[in-house]
Parts: sequence; C-alpha cells; structure tokens
Amino acid sequence: MAPDFSLLPSRIPIQNPANPAFTTDYSPLHGETPAAVLFPQSHQDCIDIMRWANLTNTPISVRGAGTGTTGGALCAPHAVLVSMQNMTRIVEIDPQNSTITAEPGVILTNIHTMANQYGLFYPPDPASLNRCTIGGNVAENAGGPRALKYGVTRDYVIGLQGVWANGEPFHYGGKVKKNVAGYDLIGLLVGSEGTLAIITQITLKLIPKPRHQREALATFDSPEHALSALTTVLQHGIQPSTAEFMVDTCIHAALHYLNTPPQFKVQRAAIIWQVDGPSEDAVTAQLSLINHLSKALDFIPMTTPDMINHVWGIRRAISLGLNQLAGQKHSEDIAVPLAKVPIVIEALEALSHPGGIQVLGYGHLGDGNIHVNILKMSASTNDWHTHAPTIIKQVMELAISNGGTITGEHGVGRTKKSFMPLQFSPHDLHLMQSIKRQVDPNGILNTDCMFPK
Amino acid sequence: MAPDFSLLPSRIPIQNPANPAFTTDYSPLHGETPAAVLFPQSHQDCIDIMRWANLTNTPISVRGAGTGTTGGALCAPHAVLVSMQNMTRIVEIDPQNSTITAEPGVILTNIHTMANQYGLFYPPDPASLNRCTIGGNVAENAGGPRALKYGVTRDYVIGLQGVWANGEPFHYGGKVKKNVAGYDLIGLLVGSEGTLAIITQITLKLIPKPRHQREALATFDSPEHALSALTTVLQHGIQPSTAEFMVDTCIHAALHYLNTPPQFKVQRAAIIWQVDGPSEDAVTAQLSLINHLSKALDFIPMTTPDMINHVWGIRRAISLGLNQLAGQKHSEDIAVPLAKVPIVIEALEALSHPGGIQVLGYGHLGDGNIHVNILKMSASTNDWHTHAPTIIKQVMELAISNGGTITGEHGVGRTKKSFMPLQFSPHDLHLMQSIKRQVDPNGILNTDCMFPK
Repeated sequence: MAPDFSLLPSRIPIQNPANPAFTTDYSPLHGETPAAVLFPQSHQDCIDIMRWANLTNTPISVRGAGTGTTGGALCAPHAVLVSMQNMTRIVEIDPQNSTITAEPGVILTNIHTMANQYGLFYPPDPASLNRCTIGGNVAENAGGPRALKYGVTRDYVIGLQGVWANGEPFHYGGKVKKNVAGYDLIGLLVGSEGTLAIITQITLKLIPKPRHQREALATFDSPEHALSALTTVLQHGIQPSTAEFMVDTCIHAALHYLNTPPQFKVQRAAIIWQVDGPSEDAVTAQLSLINHLSKALDFIPMTTPDMINHVWGIRRAISLGLNQLAGQKHSEDIAVPLAKVPIVIEALEALSHPGGIQVLGYGHLGDGNIHVNILKMSASTNDWHTHAPTIIKQVMELAISNGGTITGEHGVGRTKKSFMPLQFSPHDLHLMQSIKRQVDPNGILNTDCMFPK
Repeated sequence: MAPDFSLLPSRIPIQNPANPAFTTDYSPLHGETPAAVLFPQSHQDCIDIMRWANLTNTPISVRGAGTGTTGGALCAPHAVLVSMQNMTRIVEIDPQNSTITAEPGVILTNIHTMANQYGLFYPPDPASLNRCTIGGNVAENAGGPRALKYGVTRDYVIGLQGVWANGEPFHYGGKVKKNVAGYDLIGLLVGSEGTLAIITQITLKLIPKPRHQREALATFDSPEHALSALTTVLQHGIQPSTAEFMVDTCIHAALHYLNTPPQFKVQRAAIIWQVDGPSEDAVTAQLSLINHLSKALDFIPMTTPDMINHVWGIRRAISLGLNQLAGQKHSEDIAVPLAKVPIVIEALEALSHPGGIQVLGYGHLGDGNIHVNILKMSASTNDWHTHAPTIIKQVMELAISNGGTITGEHGVGRTKKSFMPLQFSPHDLHLMQSIKRQVDPNGILNTDCMFPK
C-alpha cells in the first residue's frame, strides 16, 4: 500500500517516484527502490516526518551521501527514504569554545577546512572524506588512519539534536566538553546506524591543529617485524598519528593500477608512519627515533611532495587496484588486538581458495583494523558465488576467535547483520533490540539494519 | 524483612551485621546501614550474588573505595552492600597490545604504576587517585586535570566483563581498539553509576607515556584574561595536558591551610599550565610559546621540585583549605562551555548570601569543569540549613542556563538526582529508566541512584 502523503506537511520536498540512484551505496548490495524520497530542510521537518511516519505506519530509511560500505544507506522494503542532502548548513564555528556545529548533510572535508581556518582540527578522516557527510559519520562512528592517535567520531561528538524514531525531539549536550549526567545517550546514538533517531544537528569538539607533520615509509620482511616496530615505538613514548600497513600484494596491485614503477624497493610488508606536533624540531626528532627503533629494511623519509603523493597514492589506490586485479571483490573491515595482526594477516591469506579466490588484508595497523579483501581473481563465476559467502563467514569467525570484532569502523548495516550472533549473545541482541523498541515502538526506522531476523 | 542468606553460596564472605564504616563516602550524606556486606572474590561470585538477589528480591548496592562525592557508594534502604574491595588483581598487563586488565577493586595509582613500568600511560587522574578504585572510576566515568588533553575514563575502557542486574553475565570488547558492532554497550555501562550491572573485570587501552613534562604558573587580573590566554594557546596549535584554574580566594585559603607564604604574587586568577611530549626541546618550546601567548601578569616556570610542590600543593589543598575556612561546605562540579567560564565564575560569587554564606568556583579551566564550593563561613547554622539547598539549586540552574551540565565528572549519585529534570525531559528520563528496567526488571541494583523519585 502506498504511503498517504496527504498528511505530510506540504513544505517538505518530495520526489515521487524516487530516483533509482537511491538504490545503491558503496556496498555490493542493490537496494529496494524507495516508495518516495523526502528532503527535509530543518529539524522541524524531521520531527514532522517521524510523526507522520508513526501516524501512517510508514517505514523510514535515512540516507547521507551513500558512501557507506555495509548497505546502511539503502532502503528497507516499502520504506520512504529520507535524504539529508538538503541539510548542509555549518550552523556555527565557535573558536572560543573550540566547537563546530553542523547539519548532518555537511561534507566531512568542509568541516576540516572550516576548522583549519581557525587553527583548529577535526581529526576523523575516513577514506571517503571528500564525499561522505558528517551525519553519516555520526551514524556509523567513522574512523580513519588518524584514529590511532586521535580516536574516532564518537570521541568528538559533544552535542546532538534530533528526533527519536517515535517522533520525540531531543537536544543532548552542546558545547560543554565534560558531562556525566545520566546514561550516555549521545554515545548510544553515535554508531547506532540510523536505527534509533534522525540526527538533525551535530556539535563537534575541535582540538588544536598540529602545526607540523612528517612522514616516512618503512619496509619489513614480515608482518611480524612491522608489528614489532610499532609496539617498540609505542613503548618508547612516541604516539604516531598514523601507522598504515600494506603487504606486497597490495602494493603491487596499486602500482599496476597507477601504471607506475615503485620509487622504493617493495618488501613483504610496509608501514607509512606519520608523526605530528607543535614544532618542526619535535616531529623531526620523533621520526628519527622511529627510524632508530623500527629496525626496518629501508626507512625512507617522505620529504618531497612527489614522494608523499607516490606513497599515499599507492595506499589510496589499493582498493581500486585490487578491484582491477580481481575482477570482483568483497571488502570487510574486521579489527583484532594489535598483537594478533600478523597471525590474522597470515590466516586471511590461508583462506584463499584453490578455485582461484584470493584473500588478503591491509589497513590501520596501529589500531588492529584490517581491511580484508576477498578477490575473485581466476575463480569461475560459479566458484565465486559458491565460495565467497563461506569465506566472508570464515573471516568473521577469524576475527572473533582472535578476540576481535566483525567491524572496526564500517558498521553492521545490512551486509553484516547475520554475523552479529558471532559477537553477541541472544541476551545482548535482545537488550539492544529492546533499547530500539523503547524509542521505536512501531518499528519505523531502519528496521532491517544491524539486527539479524 | 532480613534477606535469606541461606540461598547464597557459602564461599562468598559476608559481614553481618555490617561495619558502620560503610555508611559514609566523601559526600555529605550519611547512608543507611547495610543489611549485610558481601565481599565477592570473582566474576562467578558476582553472578551468584545477582542471581540470589533476584531470587530473594534483595536490593543490592555496590561499593568501591567510597571516595565518590555524590553518595553513589552508599546503601539503598534495606539493601545488601556488595564491596568490591577483595577483587584487587591486576589480571594482566599486555605491553604488545598496550592494554591492562584489572579487577574493579584495583587502586587507580597501581594502574598508573604498572603501566609506567612498561613505558605506557593511563591518563585519567581524579584527585582521589591514591585511594579510588578503577571500578569506581568506570562506574562514575572519572576525569581529572589531564582530561583536557587525554579525555576521561570512557575514552580508555575497551573491554568489560560483568553481570547485568538481572544476573546475566557479559563480556564486551576486549583488547580490540576499534569496534563499532551494535550499540555501544560498553559506553552505556561506563558512567552508569552501578545502576545497570556489577563490573567484574576491566580492560583499558594504554598510550605511549610522554617522556617529558614542563609546568608553569601564570597569573592574571581577571578570569576573562585567563580564559583568553587558554583560547589563544589552543588556536596556536598547542594542546596543554593541563590548565588548572584558581581564583585568589582559593589560593589564600590553601596557603592559610598549608601555613605557608606564597612564593609568587597572588593575583585575581591563575592558571597552572602543564605540557608534555616526547622530547625536552619540544616541551620547552611549547611552554615558551604559551608564555608569549598568555600575556600573563607573571609567568613562572615551575623548574624546581620545590616550586612544583608549592604550586600543586596549593591546588590540592584548596578543598581542605576552604573547608577549614568555611567550617562547613558543599562541593558541586558543574561544567559549562569554555567561553562561559568567566561569567559563571562571577555569577557563582554573586550567589553568596548576605547571611554570610560564600560561593566560589575553581577547577579544570580547559574543559569548563568548575568545582563549586558553597561555604558556610560566618552564616548561622540556621541560615546555612535554610539557604544552602537553595544555593545548590541555583548553581545547577546556572550551569544549565549557560549550556552546561549538573555534573562534569562526579556523577549524579544520590545528591544530584533531584536536579536531573533540569537537564533532561520527562521523555529522556523515562527512556533512561526503561533501559535500566530492561536489565533490572526486579529493581534490584542501586535503585535509589541517578533518577528522581
């Protein structure tokens, strides 16, 4: 049955029928075509939409820029999609309080730029930073390479305005940076993947912008030696801002994709080190200590723009390079305790199937967040469809059996919900769903996300 | 009716009748005498206690070291107190993963010491660090001066083992540092003040220990100028680890208590700056830039142990000094947005009552966390009892009307629960209580904490 739009305030723009572009995101899923797409322009619009949805029993899904990789921005069956793309105001930057307040549709990079103009810094930097929205970042609790030193989105959200699924508006926190009154409802909302509420305004804590930064590439003959370098560095009082990890296969795939020769000798494993700080001397001293402690095969300071672009170009091209190499691929983002990274990297490669499917991991070494790639390569289409789902499940089991998680930063969404029972007991899942029911008694909001049937 | 202890496993030590020492903590409240005190020694003991409590409908309160200031460690009427003082094992320090795992009864300073032995660092540093337990820190989401740079307890808890109020055991997270699967149950538990679960084991993330540290005292002719110094410093890319704020009245009270003359010229306001980092040069450079940017009346580097002890001695003696000065006092810990600190400091002083009661604030300038002291001074006992509660309410209203919170780091406990409706709507309070009911359907655990009747 079609939703009754006559009860919705006419000021809210509506696209009906929906543009088919809204059926995809960066996940491999192809979603339902929404019954319609609504484009709220204000907090009040979102309240009215949720009240209307409860009144008319219309399922709602919420979408930012659609850059998520787990299907969270897609549409539930028969649902109306709420696109936040018209709520793009930076409401205020407040340098005296070191805060920025924005609507959810603001592109992340605009937050970075605005903060930077005031000598301030918003660290989270997921790879999609030029396209993803801050609302999507809050919904998914986005991370990025700098999470190693600076933490993830949750560590910066100090104020949230929005509307619970039942239509009740809220405004928690604000510009106050320390706050322990009651249960942490802000913390509950961040990372809740749009299942509890629509966020209409976000206040972020900003920190001083480190004035200086230096980088180096270090190569190792094994993942173990790379890990050992990192733990040694950490125990010597150095907190790198980034320690990105790549194995040779990933580097070669990226070089092939970029059609460029390496400007360094490719070895089994590599770390891109980044240090930052308030003075040139401080960061230089740190990098030279990292060099001393790393015991790397080669340690190449990235001092020219050319070298920086070369190395980061390789890191950023890994996903595209593997895609080109593989024909088709699945990407997962498990995380494990740091010390388990080397054995998990090896165990992932051992999951490679004789049919030709290849499995490998790279990612954010410092926090144990491994981006796993399952590559079709020479496998037949039949083998791919038969074996890939099994391998994905094995990857998840590998994460859990090593004390890790099924998702480090991409979220559960629709692609991973069947794996939630690997990580949580029936009691835990029931508890989470009972929290959802408290704010969404009619089961309106993103009901097919996060939880298994 | 006395609880039926015959159904409780006999291995669990019991003190019956309870020692009257358990009726107090660092709050002004005098609690109920517990029906008995239980001393669990393991995770399983805690499970058995909660199952027994649900079976026999016995209310339970949980206690760490009793250093909390809001009555959270006291006992509900007719309740059995569960003391965590026998669960004091540091289960493991894992330098390769930069984690430490401890039972809740471990004294905070032991965590600091153990981490330090491995070149690692656990930053939260509430004033009670030599006496408070890590379990109490988790229950209250404790902070401290270093929160400015390093955040609070919640930012370091990555694994929790325990038992929900309904008797269901859990183990969330572990040594994995990035984890976005499902709702953030760890975040929900941290700061829940013992109302949801008994925590039996905690895994904390450790960070590299900064090798060098420098401090200075800066004096100003007004709180405004002190604040202005801080915001200028932050916008120049410098992140102090601490920026403690004192007004002249506090300094004089502390000096009087210590019976020592000041080794600097006391002005209206002062900041204790602390910077840390990986090299001597880096911290020296930062402190000298802070000197340049502060535009202080005096800027006194604290280079000798004598000067460091003198200044920090004053900071730590403020509470005791005010107590001596005042005869009696109430302490509150509101937090407000940074830019509001000067007007709130002035407004607090304006709450001082003609009867003789005096109100003033000091605290953690960097994160807007103001420790408010309401001092009896020359007021009659009658005036004190009549007016102090009104002033406390005005302090809370002042925090809220300035975009702040009724508690920055001390928690709600029993002393502030009546103020929760100032900060949260009936819907929000209902939501929090409905979350509690999901895990505590029989209303067993710390039922008279956090929420108003």
